[in-house]
Amino acid sequence: MEKQLNVGIVGTKFMGKAHSNAWKKAPLFFDVSAQPILKVACGRHEASLKEFAQQWGWQETETDWKKLVARPDIDIIDIALPQQLHYEVALAAAKEGKHIFCEKPLAMNSQQAEEMLKVCEDHKVVHYLNHNYRRTPAVALAKRMIDEGKIGRIFHWRCAYQQDWIVDPSFPLTWQLRKETAQAGPQWDLNSHAVDLAHFLIGDIATVSALTTNFIKERPLADESTSGNLKAESKGDAKGEVTVEDAALMLVQFANGAIGSFEATRFATGKKNGLTFEIYGSKGSLLFDLERMNELQYYSREDAEGYQGFRTILATDGSHPYMQHWWPAGHIIGYEHAFVHAVVDFIDAIETKQTITPNFSDGLKILRVLEAGLTSAERHQQVIIS
Amino acid sequence: MEKQLNVGIVGTKFMGKAHSNAWKKAPLFFDVSAQPILKVACGRHEASLKEFAQQWGWQETETDWKKLVARPDIDIIDIALPQQLHYEVALAAAKEGKHIFCEKPLAMNSQQAEEMLKVCEDHKVVHYLNHNYRRTPAVALAKRMIDEGKIGRIFHWRCAYQQDWIVDPSFPLTWQLRKETAQAGPQWDLNSHAVDLAHFLIGDIATVSALTTNFIKERPLADESTSGNLKAESKGDAKGEVTVEDAALMLVQFANGAIGSFEATRFATGKKNGLTFEIYGSKGSLLFDLERMNELQYYSREDAEGYQGFRTILATDGSHPYMQHWWPAGHIIGYEHAFVHAVVDFIDAIETKQTITPNFSDGLKILRVLEAGLTSAERHQQVIIS
Amino acid sequence: MEKQLNVGIVGTKFMGKAHSNAWKKAPLFFDVSAQPILKVACGRHEASLKEFAQQWGWQETETDWKKLVARPDIDIIDIALPQQLHYEVALAAAKEGKHIFCEKPLAMNSQQAEEMLKVCEDHKVVHYLNHNYRRTPAVALAKRMIDEGKIGRIFHWRCAYQQDWIVDPSFPLTWQLRKETAQAGPQWDLNSHAVDLAHFLIGDIATVSALTTNFIKERPLADESTSGNLKAESKGDAKGEVTVEDAALMLVQFANGAIGSFEATRFATGKKNGLTFEIYGSKGSLLFDLERMNELQYYSREDAEGYQGFRTILATDGSHPYMQHWWPAGHIIGYEHAFVHAVVDFIDAIETKQTITPNFSDGLKILRVLEAGLTSAERHQQVIIS
Amino acid sequence: MEKQLNVGIVGTKFMGKAHSNAWKKAPLFFDVSAQPILKVACGRHEASLKEFAQQWGWQETETDWKKLVARPDIDIIDIALPQQLHYEVALAAAKEGKHIFCEKPLAMNSQQAEEMLKVCEDHKVVHYLNHNYRRTPAVALAKRMIDEGKIGRIFHWRCAYQQDWIVDPSFPLTWQLRKETAQAGPQWDLNSHAVDLAHFLIGDIATVSALTTNFIKERPLADESTSGNLKAESKGDAKGEVTVEDAALMLVQFANGAIGSFEATRFATGKKNGLTFEIYGSKGSLLFDLERMNELQYYSREDAEGYQGFRTILATDGSHPYMQHWWPAGHIIGYEHAFVHAVVDFIDAIETKQTITPNFSDGLKILRVLEAGLTSAERHQQVIIS
Repeated sequence: MEKQLNVGIVGTKFMGKAHSNAWKKAPLFFDVSAQPILKVACGRHEASLKEFAQQWGWQETETDWKKLVARPDIDIIDIALPQQLHYEVALAAAKEGKHIFCEKPLAMNSQQAEEMLKVCEDHKVVHYLNHNYRRTPAVALAKRMIDEGKIGRIFHWRCAYQQDWIVDPSFPLTWQLRKETAQAGPQWDLNSHAVDLAHFLIGDIATVSALTTNFIKERPLADESTSGNLKAESKGDAKGEVTVEDAALMLVQFANGAIGSFEATRFATGKKNGLTFEIYGSKGSLLFDLERMNELQYYSREDAEGYQGFRTILATDGSHPYMQHWWPAGHIIGYEHAFVHAVVDFIDAIETKQTITPNFSDGLKILRVLEAGLTSAERHQQVIIS
Repeated sequence: MEKQLNVGIVGTKFMGKAHSNAWKKAPLFFDVSAQPILKVACGRHEASLKEFAQQWGWQETETDWKKLVARPDIDIIDIALPQQLHYEVALAAAKEGKHIFCEKPLAMNSQQAEEMLKVCEDHKVVHYLNHNYRRTPAVALAKRMIDEGKIGRIFHWRCAYQQDWIVDPSFPLTWQLRKETAQAGPQWDLNSHAVDLAHFLIGDIATVSALTTNFIKERPLADESTSGNLKAESKGDAKGEVTVEDAALMLVQFANGAIGSFEATRFATGKKNGLTFEIYGSKGSLLFDLERMNELQYYSREDAEGYQGFRTILATDGSHPYMQHWWPAGHIIGYEHAFVHAVVDFIDAIETKQTITPNFSDGLKILRVLEAGLTSAERHQQVIIS
Repeated sequence: MEKQLNVGIVGTKFMGKAHSNAWKKAPLFFDVSAQPILKVACGRHEASLKEFAQQWGWQETETDWKKLVARPDIDIIDIALPQQLHYEVALAAAKEGKHIFCEKPLAMNSQQAEEMLKVCEDHKVVHYLNHNYRRTPAVALAKRMIDEGKIGRIFHWRCAYQQDWIVDPSFPLTWQLRKETAQAGPQWDLNSHAVDLAHFLIGDIATVSALTTNFIKERPLADESTSGNLKAESKGDAKGEVTVEDAALMLVQFANGAIGSFEATRFATGKKNGLTFEIYGSKGSLLFDLERMNELQYYSREDAEGYQGFRTILATDGSHPYMQHWWPAGHIIGYEHAFVHAVVDFIDAIETKQTITPNFSDGLKILRVLEAGLTSAERHQQVIIS
Repeated sequence: MEKQLNVGIVGTKFMGKAHSNAWKKAPLFFDVSAQPILKVACGRHEASLKEFAQQWGWQETETDWKKLVARPDIDIIDIALPQQLHYEVALAAAKEGKHIFCEKPLAMNSQQAEEMLKVCEDHKVVHYLNHNYRRTPAVALAKRMIDEGKIGRIFHWRCAYQQDWIVDPSFPLTWQLRKETAQAGPQWDLNSHAVDLAHFLIGDIATVSALTTNFIKERPLADESTSGNLKAESKGDAKGEVTVEDAALMLVQFANGAIGSFEATRFATGKKNGLTFEIYGSKGSLLFDLERMNELQYYSREDAEGYQGFRTILATDGSHPYMQHWWPAGHIIGYEHAFVHAVVDFIDAIETKQTITPNFSDGLKILRVLEAGLTSAERHQQVIIS
């Protein structure tokens, strides 16, 4: 008889949807080590919760996450919530011995993260932090190529994560734009992804020099009930102060001697979810663009002279990470597929009693870099990562 | 209580997988008019059938498709088989009053297609032919733009469908390369898609001039048990003749005065599933590339002089066809999603007692063009479509 | 003392300018075998001729080309005229023993071309036909790669030459749009280039099936004095019939077994001078786009599996044809540079008493293909090239 | 009788060639206000100087630049030298009342630049600093679009200037890699261009935070006689220390509230002369890539919703800056053409007694930013531009 794992999810919005899809889809395309059961969905609003659970096939619902994490039949807590709520839920879940699949960014600050990590380690639960882009086949291929030595010694990391959803000054002051609910702006939301990729592909960051700014200081107050999926509306005429940065730029030194740059913004008009990185090394280079996420650009100095050039590897054939489970070469996959890969690997980690990366330890390391960035921006000087 | 529709699928390989995924995924992301139930999977080989059914959640199995189509509890027959088998199954299914979701190309020839269409019409079943690319959001957007008049009078259609999976002469003589099992090569497999898109976007084709060729005349015999997903192996040293064309090119005149070209090949080294089209009109132009299927290139002569250019519309925001059901703008979808859209629209057609396109009538029209192409290639002269 | 060659040019419009620039620039960047002297410019209109000669440094002027070709001090006749006038001037020049640098297309028909070739051969003059794109470094590189065997056996040639300068129905009936002055439309103007490239890169063409059409049948009469550089104006309200085709498509079989397609049009909205070709072979593929003429896309099946992809060779380093004479790698060149390369090679041919290609023999072969195309289009059947 | 201006050039290597070409070509394609006469070429090595002068048509030669600047018949001194020599030559030339066309970067430091500017102003000579990329048509178009308000309020400037010519550790220690001859590495050579573009397109820079590094600390000593065009060779086995940075990154705040980033490196494997910038504003965005310098990407928020996208303007038609003087639309120009535009505008400034930009004042401003960058990198803190 097949092993099963009961999942309880907290959160029913964009990430609730993306995670639910991953839990359902993983066993269809992959030979998972255990069958994930969509057991309980948890949300504050009864009506929308019921609808969500029915749509996605969650067997039961719960409006109090404390009850959910206390249920003995639950093996996995999936935290699909804004960062403000991660700490409390994760601590409680770990203490109950639940394995944790947690949306990013990990927490509001590194103190929370440290504690979350410690409790997870103390209770020996598997903890996963969903920096999903690591499991995009083209990114996983980049990692493999670096590990194989194809890029040689790395000189440069150049990364931008660019969106434009708040360029309009009438876009309201949603929770993402207030410090008490979001802690920071694109530094948390976007640069957490970018720093994770840098840690994954390049290595540890030793110093940070950062610059942040606000382009629009005040916005209409938000009707939070409309804030899902970036389509928020304002309520009334009152305005409030934007208390997180609109853009965050960082220059870094890696411990291995490479240098890097990060640019995260919500004001890059025309860029919707534009995460790009460039890696230049002594033997070759790699370029990636999330809006063309099935492609990896590769330049090799080992190609014959005069015949070198950036080549587009369409990372869709069976030799590419994860791709033998999907379609024939040339048939692309989309945004949601990396979540499926994460679920497959997470289940595998539980069953084989291994760790999975990125996890809370990685998340803590990311937050330390992000915090150093904010400190640097405030003090106008370089900060050394301790 | 919600309406349900019981589906019986025939075929368990590449298309069996793609269709199963669509039946499962449609109700998760869309508000379907009726809930599709994955009732019965049908295949010839008991063992692989069981595995397939379990993987995808088909409730029951059946090794004889005749028994399947005779079952009174089945509402829909999904024909996920090679073209050789469509005729027989479709006729039987229609006669039993089943709605039909049929993989392309429709049939081995237009005589079969005519009969299939007639029986479906006589039995008033909904028939759908899965030229899935019509339901790629960027393609559906192209259609909307043409209908809105943004392109004006259309002058040119230029289309290529390029693959490279048989460039290696040691690739074996699979069923796709023999006339008795496939009827034709890329003219059937690839140009059927291309002609469907041309009918959809430009209009009816009036004349055809074609050229076909074979680059490799003999190949090792195939071990057909390995022929799924383009990874076939040969058995022994014996060779056999390739009896379908390796490449098929057509020049056409459309009834509306536009002219067009088609190029379908399995010998375009480097192209995996490279379907591209270009449309040039009096007011604007559209370019599409399936390997970047979330993008549509648009040139407008109505932009200010000096500021005109081909712009890349990333067809991922809520205003684009089907996309409000998926992710926020900038989060791309993949190959499999168009199948989901087809399932949603097919269910809707059944529930609202409407027709859906493309259907067997469209498929018949496509086959007439493809046959005219083969005739033209043989006779070395233009053929008028009757 | 350095060898000199006196040049007499006939024609002062777009091509007069492009050729003059090439004669002046060649000795600056290249070590030419002999110094070209811009001796005499010839044109019908005294005033504009004087201005042209002064601008470009032609030492003398002549309004009668017959006098020019008779001058004993002239070594080279540069025919920078519309095709209607090539025959007469070339015959006279060759009979006077002048070497001929002739703009394309060669002539109004293959009978003229045959005679032109014969007279040149009889009088042992060097004859060059300016299909300049052969000498674009990226195209010359493509040729070298094919000759080196990097592409292997060639299966496919796919070429389009797309412009849009007559999409507007109010564009007047210039000489290019009338049969008596132009012989044909894009079949002559654009497909002559495309067929030359096909001959150069792939080989001889054995059969042709073609389709031509007219989108706009009548246009306002032109004020020919304004017809330079595609900015023509009409005069009065009178209209005349367009007597050349607006678009010409061809499917061909090459003698070596490859097949190919050509598409030439003046109705591809958004394409200004869009010449693209694709070559697919058993070992690799090549893609070219004139609007990005410094780049050559190369796919190699000999790259490691999983790391294959189309790579962009920026053909600007010293290893690439002609490029060691220009700038450091990464500094691109433009449209006019291929004319310079042609002048350098043409002078070299004269000094070394060699032939240069393409020449009138190549031009004759091109015209036979183009004529076969028009015949095929008229008869709606394939034509075999004799 | 036409006005003439006698030019004396100092420097005969890469820039001597690029400038000579510009002086010769400008009057051919443009109606210049005065005819530039290539009067005197000046270089230290008699033999190579003679060859250079003959190749390019300089009428006379001079091996001592002091004699050249003292000649009363010279109107213009063209300084085509490494930065180390600009100060001395420019001061002397200005004192003699010569107009100055000076290669970039302006000088070794801002003290030199200040003095150079002052002397030029005192002697009322026209001074031009050759940041040639401003006069690339696509860049000039970007400026026009910003001035027209098409981009709105600018939020972001993101720029990289990436080359790879010293990735190989055996590349020798040429003058560009030693502080006493070059002052700095890519911060001077590449970021001077980038900062000029930022000043031109965005505005003044208020603060700088920078990071520099060295990837390779020692290199073989160079045979300087081979150092032209980046193809240097080493002499013997001795090594010396690299005393300029290998890469320089900056984050900046502009006075107008925009923020920006710069990345200049000689270690971006695969990038030959890769200058790219991105500008994001409240109404639209612009992207540029020097390796495709005829193209400007433009995104407009004023396009209809759902039809927005980055469009590629091929800046080659008569409506684009400078382009009516070259070829018909779609016929691209190359690297050298911007030098021609600079010569045309410089002559015009002399004849109309106007200033031209960029000039020594702009160069001084650039050097202050670059120096602030180096200071910031050394102190690990932000520097405010005074």
